[in-house]
Order: sequence, then C-alpha cells, then structure tokens
Amino acid sequence: MKAVTLDNIDDFVAGAAVLGAGGGWGPHIPMLMVKDAVRRYGPVPIVQPDDLPADGLVIPVGAGGAPTALIERFFEGSEWRIAVRALEKRLGRKAVALMAAELGGGNAVLPVAAAAELGLPAIDADGMRRCFPKVEMTLWQLEGVPASPGVVADTKGNVVLIEGVDNYEVERITRATLVQMGMMAVAAMYPMTAQRVQETSIIGSLTYCHEIGKRLRAVAGGAGNGYDDLLEFCEGRIVFTGKVIDLERRTEGGWNLGTVTLEHVEDSDRIMRLDFQNENLVALENGRPVVTSPDLITTLDVETAQAVLTDGLAYGQRLHVLATPAHERWLTPEAIDLVGPRAFGYDLDYVHFFEGATA
Amino acid sequence: MKAVTLDNIDDFVAGAAVLGAGGGWGPHIPMLMVKDAVRRYGPVPIVQPDDLPADGLVIPVGAGGAPTALIERFFEGSEWRIAVRALEKRLGRKAVALMAAELGGGNAVLPVAAAAELGLPAIDADGMRRCFPKVEMTLWQLEGVPASPGVVADTKGNVVLIEGVDNYEVERITRATLVQMGMMAVAAMYPMTAQRVQETSIIGSLTYCHEIGKRLRAVAGGAGNGYDDLLEFCEGRIVFTGKVIDLERRTEGGWNLGTVTLEHVEDSDRIMRLDFQNENLVALENGRPVVTSPDLITTLDVETAQAVLTDGLAYGQRLHVLATPAHERWLTPEAIDLVGPRAFGYDLDYVHFFEGATA
Repeated sequence: MKAVTLDNIDDFVAGAAVLGAGGGWGPHIPMLMVKDAVRRYGPVPIVQPDDLPADGLVIPVGAGGAPTALIERFFEGSEWRIAVRALEKRLGRKAVALMAAELGGGNAVLPVAAAAELGLPAIDADGMRRCFPKVEMTLWQLEGVPASPGVVADTKGNVVLIEGVDNYEVERITRATLVQMGMMAVAAMYPMTAQRVQETSIIGSLTYCHEIGKRLRAVAGGAGNGYDDLLEFCEGRIVFTGKVIDLERRTEGGWNLGTVTLEHVEDSDRIMRLDFQNENLVALENGRPVVTSPDLITTLDVETAQAVLTDGLAYGQRLHVLATPAHERWLTPEAIDLVGPRAFGYDLDYVHFFEGATA
Repeated sequence: MKAVTLDNIDDFVAGAAVLGAGGGWGPHIPMLMVKDAVRRYGPVPIVQPDDLPADGLVIPVGAGGAPTALIERFFEGSEWRIAVRALEKRLGRKAVALMAAELGGGNAVLPVAAAAELGLPAIDADGMRRCFPKVEMTLWQLEGVPASPGVVADTKGNVVLIEGVDNYEVERITRATLVQMGMMAVAAMYPMTAQRVQETSIIGSLTYCHEIGKRLRAVAGGAGNGYDDLLEFCEGRIVFTGKVIDLERRTEGGWNLGTVTLEHVEDSDRIMRLDFQNENLVALENGRPVVTSPDLITTLDVETAQAVLTDGLAYGQRLHVLATPAHERWLTPEAIDLVGPRAFGYDLDYVHFFEGATA
C-alpha cells in the first residue's frame, strides 16, 4: 500500500477490525475521521522506514482508554497535534513520520488521520501487528525500546508528559491518567529513529492489514470461494461457528472485561467461550483451551462477514470464530511471558494452535 | 527568620507541626533531612520575594501522597533535583528560589532541604499558611495562578510533567499519578515570577511558622506562662482538653481519612470529635460544629506540648485541641467555597469561630 486513499480506506478499515481481535478501538468512528482527513488533506502517503533518513524522528501514536468511551466522545483532531508537538518539544526535534503503535481497530486507522492532519507520512509498520492493551506489550519492549518520553493528551486540553524508569511504570501512570481523562485520550510514545523502526518493528503491517481487509470484503461481496482467500493469506482458520447464548461485560479499572459464550450452530453440545480484556485473549471449547493470546481471536458475523468487536456482541448473533497466527516474533518464550495467557492472569499455557497438533 | 540554621531548625519544625493541623507530612523525618542538608550545605538563606529580581523564576515544591507512606519510604534527595530540573527545562529557564507550596508538617521543611541541595534560597512565603490536601486548594488558585506546568517525580526516577487546563484537572491527574507512585512523590508546581509571589502569596509565613514553634517549645520547656504567649501570638484558643476514647483511620484513594473522639478530662459529658482528611477539618463538641476548615485544628500532647499528627493518634492520649485562625484571605466567600467544610463533603457551614459569637 503506497497511500491511504478514499479508494482503499474501506478495505484498510475492514482489516483493522480483524486485527483488533475484538478490541482495540472500534474502527467505524475513526474511519469517519480518516475519511474526513483524506478528503481535506488528500491521500496519506504510506512509506517504508528505509525511505526515511535513518536518524529521522518517528512518533508512534494511538488512542488509549476504554473502547466504550469512544462511542460517547469523539476526538477533535487537535489533541494529536498537541501530543505530537509536546513530544517534539521535549525531544528538541520534529517528527518525519507517524506510526501506528498497534495495528487493530481504530488504532490502525487513527494514526493515518493524525498524519494527514500534521502533513506527515505514516510508516508501513507497527509494534505488534495486532492489538494489546498495555503500554509495555509491544515488540519494542522486547527490543529494549523505551516508551519514554511519552505524552498523553485529552480532548479537554490536558497534556501529560511521562518519563518512566521502564515501560511498566509508563503503563501504570498512563492507565491512571487515562481514568482521570475519562478513558479517552491520545498517546504519543516510543519515539525512535527511522533506523530503530526498521530494526525493531513489524514492517509491512499496514499493507498486511489492507490485504486482509480486501479479502474479507470480498467475502462480504459474495466472492465465489468464500473465506478461502482470506484464510490462505493470513494462514488462519475458522475454529467455531456458533450463536451467542451468554454474554457478560463490565468496565473495570480502565478495562473492558468479559466473556461471550457461543453454542455451535450444528452441534449444541459444542460450547465455545471467549474471554476478553479489551481484546479476545482465550478461546475455550467445552473448557479446553483452543486458541490463546498472542494468536488472534476474531469474531465475524456469519451474515455480513464483518468483524464484530466485543462492544458489538449481542445475544443471538451467529458468529464465526477466526483464529489467526500471531507474528512469529510473538512466539519466543520471552514474548509469551509478556503477552501469553498468564500475562493476563489466566492459569493457562500458550496453545501452539498453528503447529497443528491441537486443531 | 533570615536563614534556617541548626540553631533554629527545631523551633521551625515544631511550628510546622502545628500548622500541619494534624496532617501534612509528619515533620520528624523531613527534619532529619533538613538537618542533614544544613550540615552539608550550611544555613539555608530565607529571602523575601522583593529581594529577588521581579521576573526571577520561583518554583514551589512539596511532597505529595499519603503521610503514612513517608514512614515506610524515605526521600533520597535526588527527586527534588529531578523535579525542579524537569520544570526548568520545560520553562526554558533556571529557578532563582524555591518556595513551600503549603506551610505545615514536612511540606514546610522539605523545601528548605531541597533549596539547600540545589544551592538556592527559600522564600519566606507560601500559598496557604497551613496545609490543604489538594492541588487547587491554594490562595494562588483564587488569584488565578495556574499550577501548570507542574512536575511529579518519585524515588524510582519516574517523572511526569502535567499541563492541565485548570488546577482541578492537575489535581485529578496528580492524585492518580501519586497512587501509581506508591503515594510518595515530590511535586514542583505553580511556577511563577518573584513578582507574582509577592502579589499572590502569604508573605512572612516561614517566619510565622518559626515564631509559633519557638513559643510552643517554650511551653514544653516549662516556661512560666504556659500557652499564653503562643495563644496570643497566633490568636488561637485551646477549645478542648480530652482523652482519646475512639479512633478510626483508613487510607482510601490516596487520602488518610478518619475521626478521633475525645472525652473531656474534667467533664465526661463533653465529647469532641475531630474529622480529618489528611488534615483535621472539623471539630464538633457533642455534635455541634465548633471549629471548621479553613481555621486550623491541631492536637497537642498535654504532657509534652508537642503537636500530635493524625498518624500519631492513639487511644488514651490526653490532648489539647488548639484552634488557630486561618489567614484572613481564607475567609472570603470564594475561599470558603474552595476550602470550607462543604469542599470536603461535610454538610456544614463554616463556623466563624474567631468572631467570638460561638465560643
């Protein structure tokens, strides 16, 4: 993908919803923002990190807080400018590009809108190729890239510059700040040079997102081979197709927590439960873990072939459960410690689902 | 007071404990710090704001969090430097002096230690001439001085720069940050010029503190006229003398909350209850409000004539309850709205105790 344009934005957003794994930020309102930005400022160039000067400053941006809050409040755009400018001021230099910190839901899309507004390109890379809900849950953490200095800014105009001794401290302070900001703020963190982006990030992830979305929308459009193209491209599998028979959601300490229970459409003895903390993290069939974080678990509406976020779940929905393998860099023991099921408090080992033994 | 020296530090600290009104930071550990600082760096000059260049930068500093946390953890000194330097960097200029934000408990004393460490004078002024537990509860708030930009730094090395749209927002973000910092951090906020200090602060408050402490220590030393000198100087009254018969304390959301109940030593039908939220805020005798914030309520040990902080309260203690009038600038309707009993959630009007009608 060379640029985000009005022609490819719908595919891009559809892919972002899949990679959001049920969480992140619902992409629909961000899509309105990015469409508006593209209309106003023109297509947003997507560049590779090695297109940029090696020492050029790249600023990853994202929105933080509880996805539910975005329904009620809407970004005004200026907070991106405020956050990026505050970080630039602290660093004494200007950014040459923006980047998505995570690649899912609204947080794949919003950085493109921010880049348009600031007249910068967006980089075809991110720190996860999916979403995770904590500051330290990035491949950058594993590569020793500090999230500090980082800025959190809200729609009211509050700006907080955080310099934590490590990324866990930044997370704790950021989370507490977000709660005070009404669970709705933008963040600019993990500033690094283009060369460090190249060394530490997942390259090509915006293109990956776009390709997934294109294939998903082909399914919705009634393309002949249904999900085959999509599944082949992302090496994913539909592990379950069921109807929502139970649903529990709560917002707690800055998190969207809950579970959704599905009964298989063809066999009522088969029950799948998905546990989510912002993102879907664990899929259990009749109590047996089938897919776990960091692999992606996404629910797709059987009728419309659109990703359904946890916010959009409802009784009676018929859903496919799509499992997509995490990027291989998430599968080291160190990475599993950081983002595997135990990192979220589940007493479960990571299931090597895509190695075939359990499928 | 021209300087804080080893000769007058004990008086100064004793006064700080009175003006802490039961809260603030217990002065004993800060006293060790300031004594250590004075030994290392020499006497700390105390200057008047008009001794300084009118446009010189003055930075008020203080410690934030729950007083109980200070018992467990100890400042290392370097966090003052980090906080002041971070604020200087944001403002693009060096401070010419430090100032106490509040004048009670450790927060009257610690800025003197910080000034010694940074090689700066401390100003004979503060923003309250007592303690209050929230960022916006200062006379500076009433004068329109922003607390932003402000810095919070902890002993681990985390530094957070807060630019809030108003002082209430700064308070909310600061409080949330403090909780993440383990309720123990230093703050540098309300930066202003020496001229603004002169215009907006209570001038002479360190000297006032020292004079009170001198008189209190004379009582402890067995001076002939007991409390008379002290009461005359501060226009205070001992409103009750009783024994602690009930005590309830809890730490909640970053606050030390509780009540202490005293039975009068000469008349067991007279019961006084003090309610505190960090500081003592309301004194009720047999249910009738007698003294309320912003007037100061301080408990003094009958035997030792030392101020007893809420942390040091214990069953069976015999205490004088000393009421001292707040600075007259705290008695406007606007000020009462900010720091009167209703600002702390009590369904009580301010009692004009020192106008004589109710005493």
